[in-house]
Amino acid sequence: MGKIYVIGIGPGGAQETTPRAQAALAASDVLVGYTTYIDLVKEHYPGKDTIATPMTTEVARCRTCRDLALKGRTVAMICSGDAGVYGMAGLIYQVCEDAPDLEIEVIPGVTAATAGAALLGAPLVHDFAVISLSDALTPWGTIAKRLELAAEGDFVLCLYNPASKTRPDTLKKAADILLGYCGPDTPCGLARRVGREGEECWLCTLEELGEQPADMSTTVFVGNSQTQVIGGKLVTPRGYETKGAL
Amino acid sequence: MGKIYVIGIGPGGAQETTPRAQAALAASDVLVGYTTYIDLVKEHYPGKDTIATPMTTEVARCRTCRDLALKGRTVAMICSGDAGVYGMAGLIYQVCEDAPDLEIEVIPGVTAATAGAALLGAPLVHDFAVISLSDALTPWGTIAKRLELAAEGDFVLCLYNPASKTRPDTLKKAADILLGYCGPDTPCGLARRVGREGEECWLCTLEELGEQPADMSTTVFVGNSQTQVIGGKLVTPRGYETKGAL
Repeated sequence: MGKIYVIGIGPGGAQETTPRAQAALAASDVLVGYTTYIDLVKEHYPGKDTIATPMTTEVARCRTCRDLALKGRTVAMICSGDAGVYGMAGLIYQVCEDAPDLEIEVIPGVTAATAGAALLGAPLVHDFAVISLSDALTPWGTIAKRLELAAEGDFVLCLYNPASKTRPDTLKKAADILLGYCGPDTPCGLARRVGREGEECWLCTLEELGEQPADMSTTVFVGNSQTQVIGGKLVTPRGYETKGAL
Repeated sequence: MGKIYVIGIGPGGAQETTPRAQAALAASDVLVGYTTYIDLVKEHYPGKDTIATPMTTEVARCRTCRDLALKGRTVAMICSGDAGVYGMAGLIYQVCEDAPDLEIEVIPGVTAATAGAALLGAPLVHDFAVISLSDALTPWGTIAKRLELAAEGDFVLCLYNPASKTRPDTLKKAADILLGYCGPDTPCGLARRVGREGEECWLCTLEELGEQPADMSTTVFVGNSQTQVIGGKLVTPRGYETKGAL
């Protein structure tokens, strides 16, 4: 019986991949993942078999891992960022439900929420909600309701998958919903290709958010009522000032 | 002019500290942080000055970093998990607002949300909200409202600081609120001392959650309406099954 590691390699380069994730990659016989992620790691682990599969073939990719592990191989399912935040960890458990003796180990990584936040400043220092704007697997009505309730709760928002070629308008739709709850001057930030070539980040207001050039490599942050811009950085206070400590 | 690195060292041992965080620790002259975190790293970086300060002295700790950096030193402000999730990154920017030329670099780490989730299975694979149950800096009314709205939105919940010696009943109070929105059988999980000696995790139902022995080293997960227990693991489906793909 083999084993499946579900590995979060972090947001980009090897500098953000934990030693535990590196050790699991080194211990694996086969590296499986979305083509882009395989390309990020394979040069560091020469001699491994690699199986690179395109987007939207996630179920087949997880079944491949299961079948290889059942044949005795040690398989690394490679995820960008963290393995469990919109990653393959859940699907691996679902696909392997009929193979209860198979060993599965999920190895966490630095997720886009915290990597993007670090680049922009410190927007996630207080309570926050993480919402994917992709309606490929979730009805838009569910996404819209979550945006409304999170805004009503004054959560900082972190939005994954803000827009893609097939749905160029989802960030605009989300911003329009949020403008019903939050002021137009609410500070926002976008982080793109974090930790990779072409990394960039920038700030805007909620009123300007819908027009930003976001894509599947972008993570979007919307401040709460307390979030400020300090020296060009997006900062959500934790509350020390209300205690007179600042 | 010196520099401040605000470093997330990950949840526990050096195995979860990214190479980028390790390089920043190595490049620093002084390591500053809560006593427990200094103890976790100082043996790996001998010869550095260390300033270990107790809990509740966060503002003074950040001012110490600023003053040292203004004197030309390279300072590492060490945070457990990620530097920006209830970490010191925000307060550092606030405290250094009057020193705009000071260089500050926030280095993200694996946060307790994703590290605990990996140990328990894959609870955070769909939209989730992160809420701290500590009312030291946030009124309980705000926390309660966020719990209600997040439950109404069917977010998976990740609860930081679920209970402490001075507020032993906050997890019970939170669970009682959630029971107004979610079924008593809603699967929950707790992860304690992740990545450290004595690491443990276990599952329970929402009805049982209020009685669990949680402390400041524990992260709590409450599933949404779709979360399942598969082979003893807490798994939130991403939605592939609704497309007939599973």
